Amino acid sequence: MRIGYLGPAGTFTEEALDIWIKPQLNLEKYKKVALPSIVDLIKAVGSDVDIGIVPIENSLEGSLNITVDSFIHGVKAMIKGEVVIPVAHHLLLKSNIPLNEIKEVLSHPQALFQCRKYLMENMSCARLKEVSSTAEAARLVSESKDKIAAIGGMSLTKIYNLKVTAENIQDQENNMTRFYILSTEDERVTGRDKTTLICSVENKPGSLYGILKVFADKGINLTKIESRPSRRVLGEYVFLIEVEGHKLQEPLESALKELRASTSFYKILGSYPKFQLYNRSL
Amino acid sequence: MRIGYLGPAGTFTEEALDIWIKPQLNLEKYKKVALPSIVDLIKAVGSDVDIGIVPIENSLEGSLNITVDSFIHGVKAMIKGEVVIPVAHHLLLKSNIPLNEIKEVLSHPQALFQCRKYLMENMSCARLKEVSSTAEAARLVSESKDKIAAIGGMSLTKIYNLKVTAENIQDQENNMTRFYILSTEDERVTGRDKTTLICSVENKPGSLYGILKVFADKGINLTKIESRPSRRVLGEYVFLIEVEGHKLQEPLESALKELRASTSFYKILGSYPKFQLYNRSL
Repeated sequence: MRIGYLGPAGTFTEEALDIWIKPQLNLEKYKKVALPSIVDLIKAVGSDVDIGIVPIENSLEGSLNITVDSFIHGVKAMIKGEVVIPVAHHLLLKSNIPLNEIKEVLSHPQALFQCRKYLMENMSCARLKEVSSTAEAARLVSESKDKIAAIGGMSLTKIYNLKVTAENIQDQENNMTRFYILSTEDERVTGRDKTTLICSVENKPGSLYGILKVFADKGINLTKIESRPSRRVLGEYVFLIEVEGHKLQEPLESALKELRASTSFYKILGSYPKFQLYNRSL
Repeated sequence: MRIGYLGPAGTFTEEALDIWIKPQLNLEKYKKVALPSIVDLIKAVGSDVDIGIVPIENSLEGSLNITVDSFIHGVKAMIKGEVVIPVAHHLLLKSNIPLNEIKEVLSHPQALFQCRKYLMENMSCARLKEVSSTAEAARLVSESKDKIAAIGGMSLTKIYNLKVTAENIQDQENNMTRFYILSTEDERVTGRDKTTLICSVENKPGSLYGILKVFADKGINLTKIESRPSRRVLGEYVFLIEVEGHKLQEPLESALKELRASTSFYKILGSYPKFQLYNRSL
């Protein structure tokens, strides 16, 4: 089994993948494949890879439009799981040197942005350099002879033989990222499921309300709603909706039947078990 | 009166601003001020500038999270108007040379992305170079002796003395961008108004439905809904909602009163006239 993730090795997507793989006891033989972009990854599911993992939202930055749009504009992969991980940023160095001697700090723009208070207070003289990923930053630091540092996750220390000089340097707590596990099929009923779907409605009063009414009338909890442009007319949207329950179980099954009748475009992306870290790590 | 826009001169934000200024006959004395970022611009309204203009959404790319988040996380500016303009990309050169001699094409990453089919078919050997804005691309081309081109809007031709070699080279039609006009106060009733508000609800079944029901019961058209993370807990959202009507006119006035009672966080960003190109250009 080939499992695709957003490369290079050591990114948060790989960390999330490892958490998902751990309790899958039947996954004795698998090969992790690093792919260069989210679009490539989603397209590869069902051909170059059997399973893929992509970020869908972050608690500070919101949804990843590229992931949502890939589902809206014609991707066939289905969601068979989700993983939520805390994003902890650390300052990574080749060898211990005082912070005030560090000339440059490298990372993904979002990681630099999320640590800007720490950087201002502790290393205000260091230049900040944006690179394509936290893993790329770690690689560059590991290969450089200059006094430079990377910001990234703990798993990079092993891969690139780096030391953690300061832990958890992000400005805000509650920095969590959620990932979808993709395959050609979704998951069977577990009793603690979620379902993701996309749909669009006519542009007239009360049409989105009509969709939510179907769920509300049956006491179904809506856990996420995201609007994206239809790309046809400004002000016309497609919605990505997540609800509690499995598409093959009541009350969701009949709610989805009603919905199909009242939307102009409708597609179920998958039913899958809710992520539960503690249960899964046992 | 000082009016702030996203600089440098010649960006699409300035084009939108000029369209808004035109019919404001009372604006005899004003000074346009270019500001370096959307965040700076929104913050400057009411202090460094009296009026500001910021992009809010594009028909292909969706909402600008930075604009939505600025309103959610503590900005005081109010919306007093909107402008919608078509985004047309052109290939701009210093002097006419054959396309196949062009070594490099410069533009904002989004503009390069939106013209990639044209570039692939017509100039597949040219290097693509991302710069901070379409205006910056035009400036660099105007100052260079190399065979390079910029992609950007028509207004750049005058400012940087460039020629249009190919018009409307974007891959998709329907590329429209919508802007908010910001000030310290919103607008009075015109009879053809829209209102933008932000609110959050408790994380329980049917809570978003409850908000939309208030509008649907009164026949109020919802024209936009955007969810953004609360930045407190993953899966907790704040909504930016746009509806038809003015906050001081029925039925919206009483709908907003009901809403205030049932939301945990609620703020009206402004009531303002709907953009009508043809009326405004008379």
